[in-house]
Amino acid sequence: MEKKSEKYECYVLVHNIAKRHNVGTLARSATAFGVAEIILVGRRDFNAFGSHGSTSHLKFRHFHSLSLARSFLKEKDCDICGVEITDNAMAVNEHPFRKSTAFLLGNEGTGLSAKECEICDFFVYIPQYGGGTASLNVTVAASIVLHHYGESIAEERKLRKETNANGFFNESGKDEAPSNLLDGLFAS
Amino acid sequence: MEKKSEKYECYVLVHNIAKRHNVGTLARSATAFGVAEIILVGRRDFNAFGSHGSTSHLKFRHFHSLSLARSFLKEKDCDICGVEITDNAMAVNEHPFRKSTAFLLGNEGTGLSAKECEICDFFVYIPQYGGGTASLNVTVAASIVLHHYGESIAEERKLRKETNANGFFNESGKDEAPSNLLDGLFAS
Repeated sequence: MEKKSEKYECYVLVHNIAKRHNVGTLARSATAFGVAEIILVGRRDFNAFGSHGSTSHLKFRHFHSLSLARSFLKEKDCDICGVEITDNAMAVNEHPFRKSTAFLLGNEGTGLSAKECEICDFFVYIPQYGGGTASLNVTVAASIVLHHYGESIAEERKLRKETNANGFFNESGKDEAPSNLLDGLFAS
Repeated sequence: MEKKSEKYECYVLVHNIAKRHNVGTLARSATAFGVAEIILVGRRDFNAFGSHGSTSHLKFRHFHSLSLARSFLKEKDCDICGVEITDNAMAVNEHPFRKSTAFLLGNEGTGLSAKECEICDFFVYIPQYGGGTASLNVTVAASIVLHHYGESIAEERKLRKETNANGFFNESGKDEAPSNLLDGLFAS
């Protein structure tokens, strides 16, 4: 049986974020939800206010342009998912994630620009149930999306575990105890 | 057939929140997710930085003590749900909500106190998938929980619509068009 790596990773792409302390809060959520790297595009400076020290667990990477960031992610066979209410956007709670995914969030307030939308493979939106504003704080939006990605991958992993109970599969090692026990059994 | 109101409402209970601008960001998410009122307990002062004007859509209410807030909510037949990782807490994405619910969030950083836990009927936690910090920003945690409550109620409403297709039921009026058409047919 072929040994196939199915370890999915999650990235957050931040393009010219305006309120720099948002990066800190974002880092805190990213750590909680197992994000591999935060990728800053454009403006390099940021501060970690609001991260409560979580930046030490996280990798940050920087690119000068969106297309350079896209090339890096495509080499990793990673989908780029824009968080934006577009005509063909899918509800994030329907978990339309199939593999490693980088989430692109717009600058606060204005949403994704045409240039930002261009590098996206698909879009998700966050269903709302109120009658008021449609705009969420950028770190709130990111956190909801990361939470759903984590949920989606956890479900997928569970499913895989059930269907491959006698086979061989890789785990990220961040799952609950039973899978780690299985990993131990299969370790060479 | 008895006419029974089944309009569920959602509240956010904030007890002595430390960083006042968090209330503004919270108000913005609360508006997006259809929260009826934000109930401030204890400290009365707050500012609306970060709300982007959404506070105008929202009601704020103030009580001097947790027990007064609880009495108010119990008169409305409202569950009080603490957002905290306790032994018997349920995963928020499993939607353990049965009726109108008020979410109680702890002061930033320290979680819910024993006194705060006392007024709660049950607890939910936010499943995480990372290896790092377990603590989320208070407005991030609130937003994830409100998002799930909205989702849960939308599902429940849809289910009720299917099972009661020939009966009589009340809607909040915030649902999608078909239910409003039904409301029109049944209006006296």
